[in-house]
Amino acid sequence: MLRFSFIRSATGLASTCSRRITTTTPTTTPSFSSSSLFLRTMATMKALVYEGPGKRSWKPVPKAEVLEPTDAVVKLTSTTICGTDLHILKGDVPSVTPGRILGHEGVGIVESVGSGVSAFKPGDRVLISCITACGKCLYCARNLQAHCLNGGWILGNDIDGTQAEYVRIPFADTSLYQAPKSLADESLLMLSDALPTGYEVGVQSAKIRPGESVAIVGAGPVGMAVLITAQFFSPATIIMIDTDDSRLAVAKKLGATHIINPSKLAASTTMMDTVTSIISEADIASGEVPNKNMTAKPGVDVAIECVGVPQTFATCQAIIAPGGRIANVGVHGTKVDLQLQELWIKNVTITTGLVSANTTAMLLQVLRGGKLKPESLITHRFKLDDIEKAYEIFGNAAREHAIKTYIEA
Amino acid sequence: MLRFSFIRSATGLASTCSRRITTTTPTTTPSFSSSSLFLRTMATMKALVYEGPGKRSWKPVPKAEVLEPTDAVVKLTSTTICGTDLHILKGDVPSVTPGRILGHEGVGIVESVGSGVSAFKPGDRVLISCITACGKCLYCARNLQAHCLNGGWILGNDIDGTQAEYVRIPFADTSLYQAPKSLADESLLMLSDALPTGYEVGVQSAKIRPGESVAIVGAGPVGMAVLITAQFFSPATIIMIDTDDSRLAVAKKLGATHIINPSKLAASTTMMDTVTSIISEADIASGEVPNKNMTAKPGVDVAIECVGVPQTFATCQAIIAPGGRIANVGVHGTKVDLQLQELWIKNVTITTGLVSANTTAMLLQVLRGGKLKPESLITHRFKLDDIEKAYEIFGNAAREHAIKTYIEA
Amino acid sequence: MLRFSFIRSATGLASTCSRRITTTTPTTTPSFSSSSLFLRTMATMKALVYEGPGKRSWKPVPKAEVLEPTDAVVKLTSTTICGTDLHILKGDVPSVTPGRILGHEGVGIVESVGSGVSAFKPGDRVLISCITACGKCLYCARNLQAHCLNGGWILGNDIDGTQAEYVRIPFADTSLYQAPKSLADESLLMLSDALPTGYEVGVQSAKIRPGESVAIVGAGPVGMAVLITAQFFSPATIIMIDTDDSRLAVAKKLGATHIINPSKLAASTTMMDTVTSIISEADIASGEVPNKNMTAKPGVDVAIECVGVPQTFATCQAIIAPGGRIANVGVHGTKVDLQLQELWIKNVTITTGLVSANTTAMLLQVLRGGKLKPESLITHRFKLDDIEKAYEIFGNAAREHAIKTYIEA
Amino acid sequence: MLRFSFIRSATGLASTCSRRITTTTPTTTPSFSSSSLFLRTMATMKALVYEGPGKRSWKPVPKAEVLEPTDAVVKLTSTTICGTDLHILKGDVPSVTPGRILGHEGVGIVESVGSGVSAFKPGDRVLISCITACGKCLYCARNLQAHCLNGGWILGNDIDGTQAEYVRIPFADTSLYQAPKSLADESLLMLSDALPTGYEVGVQSAKIRPGESVAIVGAGPVGMAVLITAQFFSPATIIMIDTDDSRLAVAKKLGATHIINPSKLAASTTMMDTVTSIISEADIASGEVPNKNMTAKPGVDVAIECVGVPQTFATCQAIIAPGGRIANVGVHGTKVDLQLQELWIKNVTITTGLVSANTTAMLLQVLRGGKLKPESLITHRFKLDDIEKAYEIFGNAAREHAIKTYIEA
Repeated sequence: MLRFSFIRSATGLASTCSRRITTTTPTTTPSFSSSSLFLRTMATMKALVYEGPGKRSWKPVPKAEVLEPTDAVVKLTSTTICGTDLHILKGDVPSVTPGRILGHEGVGIVESVGSGVSAFKPGDRVLISCITACGKCLYCARNLQAHCLNGGWILGNDIDGTQAEYVRIPFADTSLYQAPKSLADESLLMLSDALPTGYEVGVQSAKIRPGESVAIVGAGPVGMAVLITAQFFSPATIIMIDTDDSRLAVAKKLGATHIINPSKLAASTTMMDTVTSIISEADIASGEVPNKNMTAKPGVDVAIECVGVPQTFATCQAIIAPGGRIANVGVHGTKVDLQLQELWIKNVTITTGLVSANTTAMLLQVLRGGKLKPESLITHRFKLDDIEKAYEIFGNAAREHAIKTYIEA
Repeated sequence: MLRFSFIRSATGLASTCSRRITTTTPTTTPSFSSSSLFLRTMATMKALVYEGPGKRSWKPVPKAEVLEPTDAVVKLTSTTICGTDLHILKGDVPSVTPGRILGHEGVGIVESVGSGVSAFKPGDRVLISCITACGKCLYCARNLQAHCLNGGWILGNDIDGTQAEYVRIPFADTSLYQAPKSLADESLLMLSDALPTGYEVGVQSAKIRPGESVAIVGAGPVGMAVLITAQFFSPATIIMIDTDDSRLAVAKKLGATHIINPSKLAASTTMMDTVTSIISEADIASGEVPNKNMTAKPGVDVAIECVGVPQTFATCQAIIAPGGRIANVGVHGTKVDLQLQELWIKNVTITTGLVSANTTAMLLQVLRGGKLKPESLITHRFKLDDIEKAYEIFGNAAREHAIKTYIEA
Repeated sequence: MLRFSFIRSATGLASTCSRRITTTTPTTTPSFSSSSLFLRTMATMKALVYEGPGKRSWKPVPKAEVLEPTDAVVKLTSTTICGTDLHILKGDVPSVTPGRILGHEGVGIVESVGSGVSAFKPGDRVLISCITACGKCLYCARNLQAHCLNGGWILGNDIDGTQAEYVRIPFADTSLYQAPKSLADESLLMLSDALPTGYEVGVQSAKIRPGESVAIVGAGPVGMAVLITAQFFSPATIIMIDTDDSRLAVAKKLGATHIINPSKLAASTTMMDTVTSIISEADIASGEVPNKNMTAKPGVDVAIECVGVPQTFATCQAIIAPGGRIANVGVHGTKVDLQLQELWIKNVTITTGLVSANTTAMLLQVLRGGKLKPESLITHRFKLDDIEKAYEIFGNAAREHAIKTYIEA
Repeated sequence: MLRFSFIRSATGLASTCSRRITTTTPTTTPSFSSSSLFLRTMATMKALVYEGPGKRSWKPVPKAEVLEPTDAVVKLTSTTICGTDLHILKGDVPSVTPGRILGHEGVGIVESVGSGVSAFKPGDRVLISCITACGKCLYCARNLQAHCLNGGWILGNDIDGTQAEYVRIPFADTSLYQAPKSLADESLLMLSDALPTGYEVGVQSAKIRPGESVAIVGAGPVGMAVLITAQFFSPATIIMIDTDDSRLAVAKKLGATHIINPSKLAASTTMMDTVTSIISEADIASGEVPNKNMTAKPGVDVAIECVGVPQTFATCQAIIAPGGRIANVGVHGTKVDLQLQELWIKNVTITTGLVSANTTAMLLQVLRGGKLKPESLITHRFKLDDIEKAYEIFGNAAREHAIKTYIEA
């Protein structure tokens, strides 16, 4: 779920498959026998099923239904694929067992609700959040729904997900959102995961302030989500760093003020030199540094890691200014080096996190204002019956210039 | 200084002349004899001098010079007039005595500096801040330069100001800013007072967050500064409230999403009804309020008072939502009614304040990014020698559709 | 509920009866016929019933029972009386109708739970919060449970309360707290309302920081709760202001560093003079003000209003320092004068609010640490059957030197 | 300067010598010839001089004098030794060259001031801050005086320090504090460096809140300063972790609620198990975790690293709870492993930093309140003439049970 990084050949930003380690406790997840007898006597639906490492299938399964009073069942109108789904398919996420329906993003229509659901009724058009929140546990009380003791990231992980005709949503009252009529599925779909993740784990954690300088390392879907939502706070400089020129070109259109392709820097130039020349110019021009003889502020105020490999985290450390903030958004599979012998004195802050999706209502408000165009992240469109083809394209995202897919049910 | 409100006939937003009460301690303010003998033997300059209630004169006076080691003398290239200058002229500001040169806004070139000035040298192009900060006292240490024990708002008040060919700036190192080459005087001039005031006292105090609803009461220069800088934080809804349709039209161009002219509301409609219908529609559409049967959130998240009279402060109280913030930017001359019998339970926050101008460097950075166009506030242009004509126009701002004047030296 | 102020004769702090205006929407509140026939066929319990202005009765009524799946019924082991209960009895709270069982504070044992309650089971010892929170509405999502659209302050107001043998608690999962074994009822009872109110609406809103100066105006139960919880943040100076010397003596024991009885100030001395002499001495001694010739910081960093009348709110305005915060905790029945002609320039913040009780878990943690002794607020003890006597004593709190009563079931 | 860690034999917390890397720009540092001719013609004083790795000498040198208008010269009445001074003596700090007078802590009497000093005059008793702040540069404007472009940590580093009879203090107005009469040197001396460092870099960065659980790793002088100042915010649990039982005993007296000696844990017990058993017990007892079947919150809310070696930083990572904060106070000489493959999902915040000493005035206020007893850190007392003996004792701090020395001039 959530953060995506492509396999790229021989670049400084090549990612590895990251294994997700979840600490959430799954709720009741009844298993169904998929014998033909069973299917004959029960309603069925089609779904994208994980069948072990490297194997997936779009096939009929028992239809999702209400199991607990707080559940809702939603008929999907659209869904999408996250980089994490690719990791799962490789077998990197041990909490996902064969038979699991994948997917944690989607928009749809409520089909039925349990007796304890009060905020939604059949027929309501809803946005599905990637995070399921019970609203009662100590983490929910602390506004840290990512760590909900009864939910968290469970869709397409501990319980069946959204790449299907129907999906069961536990704790529906606190995990679904009414979809405004004025907003199309293409926009809403980006609010299931990508935008809240970029915003909460990147922008909000880094406390971006007006006039600051921000570097985003990694121009994948979540890096782009950071780029879009960073502009909520009007930084003066946004530098996108990636080795893929076509993605950098997209970043320019979406609001990056500068772009850097580290694979094309002169051998004698460090990333810090490059970044500081951008920033220093700004500082001197703005009068923050009274004259050029005075040491300019070295580095960026904020660096946001959106890939999930040691090298990109190293880049963030290399370019951060004294007093700066590094927000890690990438999903990491190995430990990294922290250069504390240099950073201890620099008054930096480093943050990590899984999205809590507690800003979804706010993002919906901003969407309504028309200033946010998340649908611009959609590069490819498919019908739900063609979801296997969508996986093929998205699995070769760099080659296909894919950012997000839109899969219509 | 700082906040301006026009005299308007018979409207709900008519302002009174506000008296400024300063608590600052003036620094040494030597008096000069203006005998002709004196002028013959000393360098002179022309300046706009307050000569008692209702009287001003553009005339020769002794030229500004360095008196303390921390002083700089700046040759103005441009200045402007603030609503406060009009109040002073009426005799409403007792700290201003006859003989005082008016003005606390300006851009210019450093002519000379005292021995203790290290950040500026003759020839530097500088922005003059309306706030003089010693950088040492307990208030400066708390980042509350408005209340600097050795400075604060003293220009054109306790000491001679900027509506002159030259001006002495105490504590130059902490009260001037290098002017970026890329920015014209028209832009910079708005950063002496109007924009920092709107930003710090309005936007920053009210803690505007992305997606929120904001009402600005009063579309004068500072209300417009609030409107411009509120957009740093991407509120979903910005409602400008004023009785002057031409100003409301300008507000629409500068980013207001809705406008309300209270003099044109139907008699049966309260301001709260009007505001809530805007907000509720948004809430329902966004899904924040699951359905129309549920009570919608009444009122705005933020209301910013930019006039300075009891009626506009009352409007803010009338339209604020539970948990909302009211920021008072207007200069008030009388007490107002606080409806604590209603507000005690509403979890509201009310803030007041004089600008500290500690965000000027940040505003310069944002200006450089090109997203802020403060020069759009300038409606009229004059030569410095015609400053008396500028006073006449600005003194009839409503009739003349004036917001800010640009006075070139 | 929540805030209490005594009627005192001819003092500067005399309070009026404050009317509470609630904006909450009551949940289902079935009415019972209290005919003797009915009582014969149903389980009964004894309760303190409001029977119209000036009338109350301790009498048998139908026993509380689970009505909604999210309800719990709690058998009280202790309860107490709040100043608001006195206001209700006078007929000042129109949302309370005859037949209502009073009380919104209590500790007890869960007797039964609805099918939707997961965090509590019969036999659990629990603390009852004065605020009922649904955990789902937009206000709960914003951590502003005071304004919960389905709850808020409803106990002993819109629905039956805790001055009874049993009470029904809606949304039990988000409105009850497990009671630590190590804590006696006497301690816990203060966490139903008094301490969260003092902490959230007073201390937290005022953002008290280490080393600051704090004035508390009003030494009633909530003023004492502010006094106790203000010490969480280690202010250097805490000045308690009240006209009752016996309460001031208690305040001294509970941590006030200074006390002021405004009825005993010399006629020539203002409250500001008195307060500033305390603060200035501190500032000069600490070196914050380098020498006595420099103007000392006038006034306190924080002033907390805990009475609810115009005069005490005026005191807060009179003694606040530039940059200071005024937190209003008192329940007001009339508007007050806001001296904006003086405060507009002082960079002050004024907050109001009803408790959300979202800090109850934190307060329980602090209680466990043993540093908080809220049971010290208890001055009188009664048996539940003697609750009418408790009302008599508490109704004459000043004469009886009563702060909080402990009523054991 | 600032952070101290002892060499301990074969323990998990043994520190290495940390090299300080400073990025500050030294101000003018005139060199003196120490020829006997020179000494005959100039005033002299005695000072502790660094003479290359392993060599120091208490000897006569030219007396400190005012060199810049903003300087003051202070006659020391007391000073102390910091762990950093030991590192310098080993030759680990390359910015310190032979001939440098060591020391950055002290209390004294102003002897003379430059023409630009306004807040101090000869005869004033003053506290010397380890951080010299110009008050004008972009870092001072951001309240990040640690990185002052004209100051920062320069005393006993880039310029001569406080282990002498006299010391020159640049930017005196913003680097000295008036000493309250009521406070003895023993208390004040702890405010030159130890307490501001523990408070700002540890407690403030970690944003400790009432009721939280805090682990402090390392019970040296700065760990003790963290322990003392953490109590400003009333955490419920403070766990001190160290391998030295005598220091743990001191920590208990100073307010630690629990102590852990990692060298004495059973082999089968992890640090996380030990910490969680303390916290879980608290959570269950407090009702935060409704029952024992529900997973308890694993780990502490806050972990503060006060040693400066990889192993202690690893301990902090091992015991932090989801949503927790790790504050690094230790001075590190090598990189460390950051377990991002586990931490990326835990929503943790990691901070680093050099002290800015911008809380010194606040700490003085708290000291005045009498709740802070920093003099309890003093274990050994010497006369200034015996400073070489003090170095010997402090250089064997573990064996000598030394925490801070008091050296009287």
